[in-house]
Amino acid sequence: MQENGSNTRKVTTLSDVAKLAGVSIATASKALNGRAQVKAETRERVVSAAEQLNFSPNVLAQHLLSGRSGTVGLVTHDLDGRFSIPTLMGAEDAAGTGNMSVFLCDARGDSLREQFHVQALLGRRVDGLIVVGARPDPRPSLGRKLPIPVVYAYAPSTDPRDMSIVSDNVGGGRLVAEHLLACGRTRIAVVMGDPGYGAAHDRVTGAVQAFDAAGIGMLGGQALYGSWSEEWGRTAAGIVLAQHPDVDAVLCGSDQIARGVLDTLRESGRRVPDDIAVSGYDNWELLALNARPQLTSVDMELETLGRRAAARLFEAIDGTPISGTETLSARLVPRGSTGPLPSTGQHTAARS
Amino acid sequence: MQENGSNTRKVTTLSDVAKLAGVSIATASKALNGRAQVKAETRERVVSAAEQLNFSPNVLAQHLLSGRSGTVGLVTHDLDGRFSIPTLMGAEDAAGTGNMSVFLCDARGDSLREQFHVQALLGRRVDGLIVVGARPDPRPSLGRKLPIPVVYAYAPSTDPRDMSIVSDNVGGGRLVAEHLLACGRTRIAVVMGDPGYGAAHDRVTGAVQAFDAAGIGMLGGQALYGSWSEEWGRTAAGIVLAQHPDVDAVLCGSDQIARGVLDTLRESGRRVPDDIAVSGYDNWELLALNARPQLTSVDMELETLGRRAAARLFEAIDGTPISGTETLSARLVPRGSTGPLPSTGQHTAARS
Repeated sequence: MQENGSNTRKVTTLSDVAKLAGVSIATASKALNGRAQVKAETRERVVSAAEQLNFSPNVLAQHLLSGRSGTVGLVTHDLDGRFSIPTLMGAEDAAGTGNMSVFLCDARGDSLREQFHVQALLGRRVDGLIVVGARPDPRPSLGRKLPIPVVYAYAPSTDPRDMSIVSDNVGGGRLVAEHLLACGRTRIAVVMGDPGYGAAHDRVTGAVQAFDAAGIGMLGGQALYGSWSEEWGRTAAGIVLAQHPDVDAVLCGSDQIARGVLDTLRESGRRVPDDIAVSGYDNWELLALNARPQLTSVDMELETLGRRAAARLFEAIDGTPISGTETLSARLVPRGSTGPLPSTGQHTAARS
Repeated sequence: MQENGSNTRKVTTLSDVAKLAGVSIATASKALNGRAQVKAETRERVVSAAEQLNFSPNVLAQHLLSGRSGTVGLVTHDLDGRFSIPTLMGAEDAAGTGNMSVFLCDARGDSLREQFHVQALLGRRVDGLIVVGARPDPRPSLGRKLPIPVVYAYAPSTDPRDMSIVSDNVGGGRLVAEHLLACGRTRIAVVMGDPGYGAAHDRVTGAVQAFDAAGIGMLGGQALYGSWSEEWGRTAAGIVLAQHPDVDAVLCGSDQIARGVLDTLRESGRRVPDDIAVSGYDNWELLALNARPQLTSVDMELETLGRRAAARLFEAIDGTPISGTETLSARLVPRGSTGPLPSTGQHTAARS
């Protein structure tokens, strides 16, 4: 679509409007911004001139007059952009199209690089900062002395006086476990990613809450931890099939793991979801929609997370103090890789 | 790694150094920047104070003194960040760690959004702009009237007076076709992505050059075009097997397509690479390293592209005029999905 760009269009400026209305630029600006100091007659003349020239108030000029830059910095540690790009999009959408530019800087998990980017953004006078972690574990605060507000997204700040927006990994784990239970599954293995991530344990905790409520135990008594990769999924599925041939569901910690699990199950002649239901996590559509069958997953609603972070940031920019941690619910996205056990003929509303 | 961030460390400022040396901040700055107007005795005192305080000259202050902001804007149309993040990293690396912040704005293929971000970046006084396309087709210029230099990366500008850095898709297609020929393959099918992309045709053109040079024709006489997806790869592989059961290689237009091709071949009982060699394009490690066998691919060297774009931008910022299109060579990344035909026992240096 970028082929449609037009940059030869003459842009009408506030100066043009002021000239036509025969007033100063400051007066034209006050008139268009609805300030009280402008006589009704003058305002009318300015508005008429603006209409005549097809003038759409320049957003940057408005920000300039309000003492704001209309820009927000987003410092991310998420190298592959998988979490930060949706967060960035949500943040922009929160402000409304054409009202706010979000400048993303990549800090690569390096605190010195982060400091450098923060200083560069401060030097360019952005109105606020959003800091996005690469993993949902708590991270140190940028401190309380910055001249602009900060919101931590995905990875919360360790300082409770800061404002953090995080995804509910316990709730997400519970949600998908409840869905597998609703599908009539009772022999559910849990294959998780890197145990160094708090989110891995949180997702297991949530699943165990659901199993406990249903009065069943996790298959094998504990989750299998490994890495966030397809290869681990393939290996783990082999382990599960060898130890528990009667498994009827595999709850996976990520879509990558689930893709590997699906491969091993297919090659072992197990039907998904009839014999074994499989669920992922992340709702990474690249992986989930290309899986066979398409993968039931959990969406962390990262765009909502970005929108929420930006909304809180705007409140703070407007002078409302913000602090504490807000936890965003995850959303189940049911697809073909889960469903009722065919032998029971059971149906569930969670299937769509 | 972001857990290691320390923000309680007291940062020594130029002001501290000036105070200790008993000079003005301006004099301290001139002394440390090696300007001539400072007496040797004064310079020595300032340098000694700086050493005593363990002062590392603040890069932003240096940029301030040089009239630069030390920031570059990167406007991307690449929604999922797959091309823009490596480009951003390369651009930052070109400047050296801690010398330059790159601010990324996402324009989402929308020229109005692009204009808005460009204005926001100009308003924040960045020193230059890199514009990254979502696809390697030519795009309209931002025009010649911007007050700062612009380099177009990945997608070139249609205006030859602009500076563009692009990846050589013809060369990449030729490279991987030559590799398959070196592996002794002669019945090579080409499965390409969306024919709406110039890069799809360029990659085929390169492959045909290699086939022509080897005196063989493409299997079926023409490439199969579809979409950049695993699903298309699965479907296309089925078509190829049905029409040309004696196929001995499939050259794919992307790693996603190649993943789908690998799945269909495995399920059809064909061995890769012994019966059929498969190559991808993009070297998207998420997909290429998790494939079975790991996928031979073509790397567009996007970090190099970003570094090159930034280097040209810095030249322009320093006053050297830049224009024209630079084409970056792609690099073959041989992995397990390609290899010599076992029956011929042929070996090739391209295999690593």
